[in-house]
Amino acid sequence: MADSAENGVVSEETPALSKKALKKQQKEAEKAAKKAARKKEGEEDGAAESEADCSEGCYGDFPLIQSKEKVARKLYKLNELTPALKDQKIWVRARLQTSRSKGKQCFFVLRQQKWTVQALICVGDKVSKQMVKFTAGINKESIIDVEAFVRVVDQKVESCSQQDVELHAEQVWVVSSASPRLPLLVEDAARPETAEGFATVHQDTRLDNRIIDIRTTTNQAIFRLEAGVVKLFREFLDQKNFVDVNTPKIISAASEGGANVFKVTYFKGEAFLAQSPQLYKQMCICGDFEKVYTIGAVFRAEDSNTHRHLTEFVGLDLEMAFNYHYHEVVDLIAEMFVYIFKGLRDRYQEEIQTINKQYPAEPFKFLEPSLRLEFREAVQMLREVGVEMADTEDLSTPNEKLLGKLVKAKYDTDFYILDKFPLAVRPFYTMPDPEDNKWSNSYDFFMRGEEIMSGAQRVHDPDMLTARAKEHGIKLDTIQAYIDSFRYGAPPHAGGGIGLERVTMLYLGLDNVRKTSLFPRDPKRLTP
Amino acid sequence: MADSAENGVVSEETPALSKKALKKQQKEAEKAAKKAARKKEGEEDGAAESEADCSEGCYGDFPLIQSKEKVARKLYKLNELTPALKDQKIWVRARLQTSRSKGKQCFFVLRQQKWTVQALICVGDKVSKQMVKFTAGINKESIIDVEAFVRVVDQKVESCSQQDVELHAEQVWVVSSASPRLPLLVEDAARPETAEGFATVHQDTRLDNRIIDIRTTTNQAIFRLEAGVVKLFREFLDQKNFVDVNTPKIISAASEGGANVFKVTYFKGEAFLAQSPQLYKQMCICGDFEKVYTIGAVFRAEDSNTHRHLTEFVGLDLEMAFNYHYHEVVDLIAEMFVYIFKGLRDRYQEEIQTINKQYPAEPFKFLEPSLRLEFREAVQMLREVGVEMADTEDLSTPNEKLLGKLVKAKYDTDFYILDKFPLAVRPFYTMPDPEDNKWSNSYDFFMRGEEIMSGAQRVHDPDMLTARAKEHGIKLDTIQAYIDSFRYGAPPHAGGGIGLERVTMLYLGLDNVRKTSLFPRDPKRLTP
Repeated sequence: MADSAENGVVSEETPALSKKALKKQQKEAEKAAKKAARKKEGEEDGAAESEADCSEGCYGDFPLIQSKEKVARKLYKLNELTPALKDQKIWVRARLQTSRSKGKQCFFVLRQQKWTVQALICVGDKVSKQMVKFTAGINKESIIDVEAFVRVVDQKVESCSQQDVELHAEQVWVVSSASPRLPLLVEDAARPETAEGFATVHQDTRLDNRIIDIRTTTNQAIFRLEAGVVKLFREFLDQKNFVDVNTPKIISAASEGGANVFKVTYFKGEAFLAQSPQLYKQMCICGDFEKVYTIGAVFRAEDSNTHRHLTEFVGLDLEMAFNYHYHEVVDLIAEMFVYIFKGLRDRYQEEIQTINKQYPAEPFKFLEPSLRLEFREAVQMLREVGVEMADTEDLSTPNEKLLGKLVKAKYDTDFYILDKFPLAVRPFYTMPDPEDNKWSNSYDFFMRGEEIMSGAQRVHDPDMLTARAKEHGIKLDTIQAYIDSFRYGAPPHAGGGIGLERVTMLYLGLDNVRKTSLFPRDPKRLTP
Repeated sequence: MADSAENGVVSEETPALSKKALKKQQKEAEKAAKKAARKKEGEEDGAAESEADCSEGCYGDFPLIQSKEKVARKLYKLNELTPALKDQKIWVRARLQTSRSKGKQCFFVLRQQKWTVQALICVGDKVSKQMVKFTAGINKESIIDVEAFVRVVDQKVESCSQQDVELHAEQVWVVSSASPRLPLLVEDAARPETAEGFATVHQDTRLDNRIIDIRTTTNQAIFRLEAGVVKLFREFLDQKNFVDVNTPKIISAASEGGANVFKVTYFKGEAFLAQSPQLYKQMCICGDFEKVYTIGAVFRAEDSNTHRHLTEFVGLDLEMAFNYHYHEVVDLIAEMFVYIFKGLRDRYQEEIQTINKQYPAEPFKFLEPSLRLEFREAVQMLREVGVEMADTEDLSTPNEKLLGKLVKAKYDTDFYILDKFPLAVRPFYTMPDPEDNKWSNSYDFFMRGEEIMSGAQRVHDPDMLTARAKEHGIKLDTIQAYIDSFRYGAPPHAGGGIGLERVTMLYLGLDNVRKTSLFPRDPKRLTP
């Protein structure tokens, strides 16, 4: 806290609170202690309760923090608790993860995100029996303030992140109490799914109570790593002079054929939710931005209840003008993925290892430069192992996965590009192959055998685009503005759309995209 | 282009295209030239046309770029065209901005984003009359490839960004032709609104034809600067260990009282578009992320046709746990804005100056540390100049603007914070002032007298929150998951939501938020 005294900050006194605040807190504490004592009368043997409480004013329920005063007390982060603080008295605020009382003492574990430390409170000169009992009775997951001495331990505390120290508490205050019955326990949610003989938590229970579930070390790491994917995506493209743009989510017409689109009531009319920023990022190219990316929600009204479909997800989209050949763009995107994979490997190793403890997975493998196969080669590989399929048939999900295995076995990579898809299985705006319009200038990118990006050279000629839209049965009046964008000079361009949650899921080898969406949406889930 | 020959790249030959591609191009060119000649028979005196065309194969319509071949030709960027390239023969691809033919020569201006260069083509040994005529006839805004010598000029070309050189063309190819009639001219769209005697372009014409409008140097600069706001926002918060999260846009219940919300058909049921990520970013805090930000679309079904309301805009939201006082958060956000303002000033000066040419504005002023006033002080200032208002009445838009002027006059800042709003005018989740619940722990941030961020300490106690929601007439069952989030231990926290387009508009002193939204949405506009 860098506040100056002019702003009303009360400067630090030993032990910590300002005199006024301390007085207030003591009063509240006395009330709380009396209340606690009254509550326990009858259930306890009178002896302890009737003793004078030498810890009065050192424990209890903290009054609601309503910003009454500025307090210049340093609250240490758990990861700061090392032998360097040996025998110092410090304050921490953290969750009570577990507690276990035993006679005159209570051991408890404090948690902050991925850090944990062991703490101890024992009856003594400054600590009353009542105080130990109060501490033992605090509900798990409550947020508490503890004043304690940092003591270096002889034997490492294996179960905590801070293994060399423990805290010997002298004050314990509840800042925010959790209810006594929790819908799930963080320790259960943090357990590998393969742990035999222990409770694990079902996916729906997790998602229904997501705010407890995301407290696990694993989830803290997953969503930090996911933020890393976005950061690396932006870093790479910023370096290449892409412009970060924003495109509308509410659109006037279902742009890509009308299926799988959510309808919105728009004042007295209706509108739709964009299934991708496709048309808009292309319009940016026609508007001379040359290279653009956009990050945002995309919506798909698909009634698919699979491990990899969401009705709303985060799209990492990019689009780029090129000179002569769409491989200029494919190469850049491949280079970008390698940048992301290396960045994750080098900067998020701790997160990866944390996640692997709960969800073991083989490290993600990739080549440099990336492997690029043509669709017809993939069909050939599949046929060689007995799959029957036509030349221009789209890949089914099982064939996609099988292909991933074949590619991994042959080339030892979890990442590859499939190029030159059959024209018939791609959207109307896909550029046909110049030699044979059975094929197209389009590509998918795969991670661990699942598609994470679709892209193509786009048709930039308005007449060809009109013809293609007609062949796809799209009503021309609904995409007039889009087609017209190409009437004022348009450079050849290509791009792609990446599903963020899928990239995170597959990089980590997780089995469900709901593990990488904070608040997932699917046909059956709209809450929380 | 870093491709190797193995990937099918044809290496560079003089002048440029691969032999095969060149042959192809020449054939196409001959066809085009013949067609052009046929077309002009009758309108011209026969003499020129019947002459042999010494430029055959050096001009015409380029075939559609369908990625037939990889061509290792370097296309220079216009900003690379400096005297360092004196007398070198180079290729460029750019838009034809204007052209003017005069006898045996044609002057034309090429444009790439904010860069322009003058070019010239004259009848001579290698350039035929037909070729000059062809060049003069190319529609404005078409994209063309030009091979030319870079010539250093004696007198600066004042009207172009590249003032020291001009191009002497020997090949001219149309890559993508614009239609002859444009709905607006880039040069008109780029003119200051105050330019007397010249055409300017109305806002609706601009927005209806946004892809031409955004080609102006001014718009290229505006949206690059807007991307800069996002970049600086992220940079600052990343440094402070905030986690970038994504929150759902489709939600099950209208969270903030039910007014002004768009309804979505969700399979067989219904849902709503999130008016803010408010509830979700708070849930992230309860889920132990401690400090989060999220950038994404927010939706407001307000039927407001004003200069500063959009039905969809980009929200820069943040939320943060604090220790004792919400001013810890206010101070951090203020510091963040100063970081953004300084970053814009220092890194985007060129963009700012470009924009100021078309839209003149006073430089944006801010103090360090930022000015923070209390609401009651603002009321006092307004009363002093004759405004009649109650103590706890919300600021009307005119009063907000007037206050901005008073603050500017008194403190010389365009940026300030108004703290401690009346509780009654704030959302139900706002923490009341600890001493007097007529007031609240809430704040707005202002730029040039307009609100660009609202924020508050939030109620983190479930019972208090329930009581507050009831007072606001909110159906408790619609926000149960939200209220329940606070039952498992919640730290005190505060945050705010920033409108990106407003920040950009007001930083630049623009008069309409539609100038800072690529494809704005309002009650009357859903296209393009």
